[in-house]
Amino acid sequence: MSGVITLTTDFGHKGPFVAVMRGVILARAPDARVIDLTHEIHVHWPAEAGFWLARAYRYFPVGSVHVAVVDPGVGTNRDILAAECRGHVFLAPDNGLLAQLLEDEDTAQVFRLDDDWRRRQDWPRPSHTFHGRDIFAPLAADILSGRVAPADIGPATTDIVPSLLEPAEVRGDEIRGTVVTIDHFGNLITNIGGSLLADLRSPRVQAAGRSLPLLDTYGQTKPGDFLALVNSFGVLELACAEGNAADRLGLGRGAPVIVTGSSPTILV
Amino acid sequence: MSGVITLTTDFGHKGPFVAVMRGVILARAPDARVIDLTHEIHVHWPAEAGFWLARAYRYFPVGSVHVAVVDPGVGTNRDILAAECRGHVFLAPDNGLLAQLLEDEDTAQVFRLDDDWRRRQDWPRPSHTFHGRDIFAPLAADILSGRVAPADIGPATTDIVPSLLEPAEVRGDEIRGTVVTIDHFGNLITNIGGSLLADLRSPRVQAAGRSLPLLDTYGQTKPGDFLALVNSFGVLELACAEGNAADRLGLGRGAPVIVTGSSPTILV
Amino acid sequence: MSGVITLTTDFGHKGPFVAVMRGVILARAPDARVIDLTHEIHVHWPAEAGFWLARAYRYFPVGSVHVAVVDPGVGTNRDILAAECRGHVFLAPDNGLLAQLLEDEDTAQVFRLDDDWRRRQDWPRPSHTFHGRDIFAPLAADILSGRVAPADIGPATTDIVPSLLEPAEVRGDEIRGTVVTIDHFGNLITNIGGSLLADLRSPRVQAAGRSLPLLDTYGQTKPGDFLALVNSFGVLELACAEGNAADRLGLGRGAPVIVTGSSPTILV
Repeated sequence: MSGVITLTTDFGHKGPFVAVMRGVILARAPDARVIDLTHEIHVHWPAEAGFWLARAYRYFPVGSVHVAVVDPGVGTNRDILAAECRGHVFLAPDNGLLAQLLEDEDTAQVFRLDDDWRRRQDWPRPSHTFHGRDIFAPLAADILSGRVAPADIGPATTDIVPSLLEPAEVRGDEIRGTVVTIDHFGNLITNIGGSLLADLRSPRVQAAGRSLPLLDTYGQTKPGDFLALVNSFGVLELACAEGNAADRLGLGRGAPVIVTGSSPTILV
Repeated sequence: MSGVITLTTDFGHKGPFVAVMRGVILARAPDARVIDLTHEIHVHWPAEAGFWLARAYRYFPVGSVHVAVVDPGVGTNRDILAAECRGHVFLAPDNGLLAQLLEDEDTAQVFRLDDDWRRRQDWPRPSHTFHGRDIFAPLAADILSGRVAPADIGPATTDIVPSLLEPAEVRGDEIRGTVVTIDHFGNLITNIGGSLLADLRSPRVQAAGRSLPLLDTYGQTKPGDFLALVNSFGVLELACAEGNAADRLGLGRGAPVIVTGSSPTILV
Repeated sequence: MSGVITLTTDFGHKGPFVAVMRGVILARAPDARVIDLTHEIHVHWPAEAGFWLARAYRYFPVGSVHVAVVDPGVGTNRDILAAECRGHVFLAPDNGLLAQLLEDEDTAQVFRLDDDWRRRQDWPRPSHTFHGRDIFAPLAADILSGRVAPADIGPATTDIVPSLLEPAEVRGDEIRGTVVTIDHFGNLITNIGGSLLADLRSPRVQAAGRSLPLLDTYGQTKPGDFLALVNSFGVLELACAEGNAADRLGLGRGAPVIVTGSSPTILV
């Protein structure tokens, strides 16, 4: 294994929640390198965690264990999954978080945590409200250190909860997608993969009643102008050069974005 | 020692303040594992730092050194304490921050930093305004690496500044407490220990003129409903399922919370 | 080398942007210690990154590699620089970010990244919008691990883009400066070096129509009172004891600050 564990949550940075997960991991796997993927996932929105994880995991060494805890159902009868895919391991609640990542990867194997197996481990009795600390952290540490394999934790499964995130829809030379998330700069990041745009002649991007030029990078237009681009994670992004597109366009998560080829309609 | 140093401050994430503490630690203890407990303690409110530290430290390996710098009196004649407790070491200003933790732990030993001893160390001359970098960081590194023991730094003491946080008050079958802090989800975290509730028959939780059911976890009620629970750190918490209780109830730090047994009064 | 890489960006904490830089670094330099200097630089404002880096780098071990990515021109024809200075290496876009640091250090050597050299490295083809991940991270890892020296990357240069930040101006017994940044406490941090004040008799600090006493530390005045001090990074700072000076004075980045000696003018 690589020694790397990544953490993706909606816990934010207040209180010791992420820190105690690291403490539990280090107590069981003293050489682990723990990296915060992000703790600012939109709260209770597993789809965003899955979106980022699917696009980011390849940048970590093979053998990394990726823990994602966006888990409004913690302590209820929702299940916990471990997936193996391209030499990486993913741990998350079965609430749609991993669905998109696993759809794209037909070699993935998924296992469902068995409660009897869990109770036989030398882990503390879990709380009702913080499985990140009480289940995910010790499980990640034990997998990283080789004491446990994903297949050990319970039965293989292919029947998992689907993603809450609709994929972009292609109809002829029109693509309809939505804004998945907004970055710190106010760039609006969509579910429209750049490969879909490759099939369109002179694609034009429409959002908030505006038509945005499709460029390569922010500095190709003048400060304050809107633009669209296929970003460094391969998806369509709406931006404002040296400005905040989300604020300036008045758009947020879930806003519709349309890309048309050849004969673009200008919305008014 | 475990090699772990945790950092708890009210510095936030702007500027290089936490980073230079890490730099100073790594220069003196190159193998240290430095973990951010949180840097979003309410500014100038040492009580919250002590509250979290008392509840979180057990999740780190024995031998960890916990540094807490919430220090409005920096550079004045306030003292600096090092406490040893259950194999952990705690460093903090003597401003009430450690009082609650030490009250609960009757085997703790506390030492007061002696200025003459400090001046004999090979540390840089401290600034007036950043003892986190100039005193706490080198002291933590020297303790972690075994060059200094807490008892070396100055005289033992039992007379420390008390906590600014009142404990919850029990009167018959009524418990009166307050909100200590609010997490990223808007959950209101109180100073009412779950063990106090165990003595009450059919406890009911009252806050903001409402009566909240006491449940085990968020998903036991429907989204948008209020609830109370004993959280994963053992204290009473007021929550809103998949919502923000602080915003929805209009409550903040210091707000009163009452738990009654047997014959609950419904507030209007 | 020390094994330390610091990261300074305006990326914030949303999304996996910083995390994938760490992933790329660890894949190429598994023993690197990666420290976040800050990711909350004012967006698209390289001057603040350079200001903090110039004042913070000495607190990290000699041999550290400091990566600063505040880069509105990413993907355009702006250059990338590597500077060597006092045993530290600095990587940043050539947009003024490093200018102030290098002005103060006459022994620094600066090299300009050559695109042909870059293409000969075993790095992935860079995206147009995320050179932090695609160029800065692998370059930092290769320098840290000794595979590449700054002088290898391209020609030496002395002609770099100047800083966007004006230095403080001294006229007789008056110093005119500006607020560079605001910390988490609301302290206003200026470009007026403390050494300039040493030459003034009874210096008085004026800002927002007020005259502020020059003290050593916050606790020397009563809570709520304004003060100025030379802070732990050696520059003049305006503060409010246990309060938020930026909010209370209504001042922000770029606000003028005047220090006068001997016969101070009281502004009304």
